[in-house]
Amino acid sequence: MGKRLYIEDLKKHIGEKVELKGWVYNKRGSKKIKFLILRDGTGLLQCVYFQGECEEESFGLFEELAQESSVTVVGTVREEPRSPGGVELSAETLKIIAPAVDYPITPKEHGTDFLMANRHLWLRSKRQHAALRVRAELAAAIRDFFDGRGFTLTDAPIFTPSACEGTSTLFETKYFDEKAYLSQSGQLYMEATAAAFGKVYCFGPTFRAEKSKTRRHLIEFWMVEPEVAFADLYDNMELAEEFVEYIVQRTLKNRAEELKTLERDTTKLELIKAPFPRLHYREAVDIIKKENPEFVNGNDFGGGDETIISSKFEKPVFVHHFPTAIKAFYMKQDEKEPEYTMSCDLLATEGYGEIIGGGQREESVEVLEKKISEHKLSKSDFEWYLDVRRYGTFPHAGFGLGLERTVAWVCGLKHVRESIPFPRLYGRNYP
Amino acid sequence: MGKRLYIEDLKKHIGEKVELKGWVYNKRGSKKIKFLILRDGTGLLQCVYFQGECEEESFGLFEELAQESSVTVVGTVREEPRSPGGVELSAETLKIIAPAVDYPITPKEHGTDFLMANRHLWLRSKRQHAALRVRAELAAAIRDFFDGRGFTLTDAPIFTPSACEGTSTLFETKYFDEKAYLSQSGQLYMEATAAAFGKVYCFGPTFRAEKSKTRRHLIEFWMVEPEVAFADLYDNMELAEEFVEYIVQRTLKNRAEELKTLERDTTKLELIKAPFPRLHYREAVDIIKKENPEFVNGNDFGGGDETIISSKFEKPVFVHHFPTAIKAFYMKQDEKEPEYTMSCDLLATEGYGEIIGGGQREESVEVLEKKISEHKLSKSDFEWYLDVRRYGTFPHAGFGLGLERTVAWVCGLKHVRESIPFPRLYGRNYP
Repeated sequence: MGKRLYIEDLKKHIGEKVELKGWVYNKRGSKKIKFLILRDGTGLLQCVYFQGECEEESFGLFEELAQESSVTVVGTVREEPRSPGGVELSAETLKIIAPAVDYPITPKEHGTDFLMANRHLWLRSKRQHAALRVRAELAAAIRDFFDGRGFTLTDAPIFTPSACEGTSTLFETKYFDEKAYLSQSGQLYMEATAAAFGKVYCFGPTFRAEKSKTRRHLIEFWMVEPEVAFADLYDNMELAEEFVEYIVQRTLKNRAEELKTLERDTTKLELIKAPFPRLHYREAVDIIKKENPEFVNGNDFGGGDETIISSKFEKPVFVHHFPTAIKAFYMKQDEKEPEYTMSCDLLATEGYGEIIGGGQREESVEVLEKKISEHKLSKSDFEWYLDVRRYGTFPHAGFGLGLERTVAWVCGLKHVRESIPFPRLYGRNYP
Repeated sequence: MGKRLYIEDLKKHIGEKVELKGWVYNKRGSKKIKFLILRDGTGLLQCVYFQGECEEESFGLFEELAQESSVTVVGTVREEPRSPGGVELSAETLKIIAPAVDYPITPKEHGTDFLMANRHLWLRSKRQHAALRVRAELAAAIRDFFDGRGFTLTDAPIFTPSACEGTSTLFETKYFDEKAYLSQSGQLYMEATAAAFGKVYCFGPTFRAEKSKTRRHLIEFWMVEPEVAFADLYDNMELAEEFVEYIVQRTLKNRAEELKTLERDTTKLELIKAPFPRLHYREAVDIIKKENPEFVNGNDFGGGDETIISSKFEKPVFVHHFPTAIKAFYMKQDEKEPEYTMSCDLLATEGYGEIIGGGQREESVEVLEKKISEHKLSKSDFEWYLDVRRYGTFPHAGFGLGLERTVAWVCGLKHVRESIPFPRLYGRNYP
C-alpha cells in the first residue's frame, strides 16, 4: 500500500484507496451498515461498512470489536464536510490486530484518582489528547520564539551543588560521596551563559518538593528561562509580552481544532496582544486592599490576591517592583527606591495566576556577597556565580515561564495536572 | 541609538553608526591606532580606534582595558572581507562598563581540572562557544525533524517509581514518604503515549550513576526518544538513518563557521547520508573477531569493538539482532531466531561509538510478564506498562539518541564533557 498514512493527512488523499492502523474509538450500526470510529493518534475517522460493498468477513468481525481494539482498515477516502476532518472512509476490509477486553475508561464518569492511576490510558481520551497537543504546540512555539531571535539554547544542569531559594522544597540525592539537589531553576546558570552567548535560554524540567495539593502546583514541571545581557527590567517586560503574545496567538492558529474540543472560549485568548498593562507593586496593593482589606502591605500575593488583580484586566498584567524583603538575594534593588526590586511577575487572565516571574539581577559583587551572607547561604557554593560579576559584570535580566500553568491557561483547564503527560503530585508518582 | 544590535547582524548595517555592548576579547595597538576585539556572544568584531578620528578620551581608556572587561562601543560598520564576519568597526567612542581584574582563563594552556572548575567562564572561549552553538543547532534540528513529521512531543517524567534497566546505576531520592528514582530513559512512557498519539518523542535529561570516567560517559545527559506505533525494526532503522542525515546535514549548513573554529574535517560529515550499512550481530562479530580474537560471541561490544566495526565504514553503521540474553526485558525476540532480538544500535563514524540504541518492543502481555519475572523486576511497578499490551496491543518500535555523544561526534571533540554547558561527571557537580 506504499507509505503509511495518518488520519490528519487524508484530506490530501480524497478518492484514493488507503490502509490505516489504529484503535477502535467507537462502533455502531445495523444489519446492513456499520460504522467504526477509528482513532490513530492524529485524529478520528468514520469508517463506513456497507453490507455487500465491503468484504463479508470484515462485516462479521464487528461483533468482536471492543473499545481500544487495535485494527487495520482498508478503504477509499471520501469527502465529507460534516465530519471534523472533512473526510470519511468507504471501508472494504477490517482486520483485528489485538483485542481490548474491558477497557477501564468508558464514556461514563470516573473519579480523579482512578483517572490519574490510569493516566497511561486516559491520555487516549479526546480531551487529554487535545490538551497535550496544545502543550506540544506551546513547547515548539517557545523554542521557535527564542531560536528565531538570536537566543542560544544553553541547557542548565539538573544536579546542582546548592539551593538558590531556600532548602525546604528541595529534592536531595546522593551524588556518589557528596549530596546534590535537583534544580529548582536554571536562572543562575543562564546568567553565566548570557556572558558567553549574549542572549540565552534553557527549557527543561524543574522540581519543587511542595506538600501542597493546589490546582496550580506540580512537583515536577517544565520551565523556560531566557536571560539577556545588557537588558534591564523594562527590556525584560517587553520581551515577556512579545513572547506571550507569540506563543498564544500561534497556538490559537495551529491548534484551533483542539481548543474547540476543549470548549475553550478563544475570544478571550484573541485579546492576548502586547503591550500588557503594568502595575507597580504599590498600585497592585491598592487594588487588592479594596477587595481584601486583610492584605498586609509588603507581603507576597496569594492566589486570591492575584485573581483580584487579573480580574480587572482583559490582558495579562505585569506587577513589578516587589518589595526587597520578600525577593530572592539575586534581585536587583531599584536605586531610586531600594525597598523595592527590579522584579516583575506576569499574571495570566481569567484567574490563572502567575505564569512568569523574573526581573533584573544584581550585578555588583559586593552587594551580592552581602546578600548571600544575609540570606545565610553558603558563599563557597556561589563563588562561580560571583565570578560572573568579578569579570566584566553587566546589567542583565530574564524571566521564567512555567509551561504547565501556561498550558492550563491556554486550554482553560481547571487543574494543572492535565497539562503534562505524567503529572507528579504530592502523593502521586505512578504511572 | 534605537534597537540593540549584535555582531552577527552587522552585515545588514554596513555604513550605519551603531552602538554595541560586550566584552573585551583582545586588544593591541600603537600610539596612533588601537584595536579592540569585541565579543558579544554572537561573534567577534574588530573595532579600530584611530587617534584623531575617535574621541580622545576613549583612545586613552585602552590602558585600563583587560580581557573580559565589559564595554560599550560606538562606531560605523565597514565592510572588511578579510575578517570572519565580513565587517569591522570604525570606532568613535569606548565606555568601560566594568573591569575584569586577572581573568583566570588566559591564552596559555590550562589543565582540564582547572577549566572544568571554571566552566562558567570557560564557556566564553572560542572553541567552547562554537561547540555549544553546534549543540543548540542539533537540539533545534532534532525537534524540527520530529515536529515536521507529525510526531507529538510527550515529555516523560523524571521521577519514576521503578527501574527499567537494573538499579545499580540509578539515582534515588526521597519522594515525600516514598522512594523515587531519576529516569534513565523515557522509552516505557513513550510506548504508552504512542498508543495515544501514534508517533511521539520525548527529549530531556536522563541520569546514570556510573562511576566511570571514560570520554563517552556523563552522569546527566540529554536523550531524544521517538516511538512509532505499528512500526517494526526495519521501519525504525529507516527513521533513524533519515533522522541522523537530517540533523548532521542541517548542522553542516547552519554552523559552518563554528565547525571551522573547531577545525572539524567536514568532508567526513558530508558523507553522512542515508541509507546506512546494516550488519546482523553475527556479521559484526565476524568483523570484530578478525581484530580482537578474544571477543566472546554473545557478549555486548566494548568501545574498542565498536571502533573496529565503525572503522570499516565511511557512514554510521547499524548493528541489529543483538542476542536476547544481553538485551532488556522489553526487546522483542525475532520469531524466526528467538536467540536474537529485533534490536538495533547505530555506531557513529570515526570511532565515536554508539549514538543510537533501540528496536522493536515486545507487544505480548504474556511474554512480558514472563520476562519481568525472569529479570526479577517488580511486576506491580509495571502494571501500567502491561496495560499498554492488554488494551489493543500493537507492534511498535523506537530508539534513543544521546545528544552529547552526537555533539561530540559532529564537533570532533575528544571528550563528551565539552558537549554540554555544565557537565556532570563522576566526582564533578560544580559549578
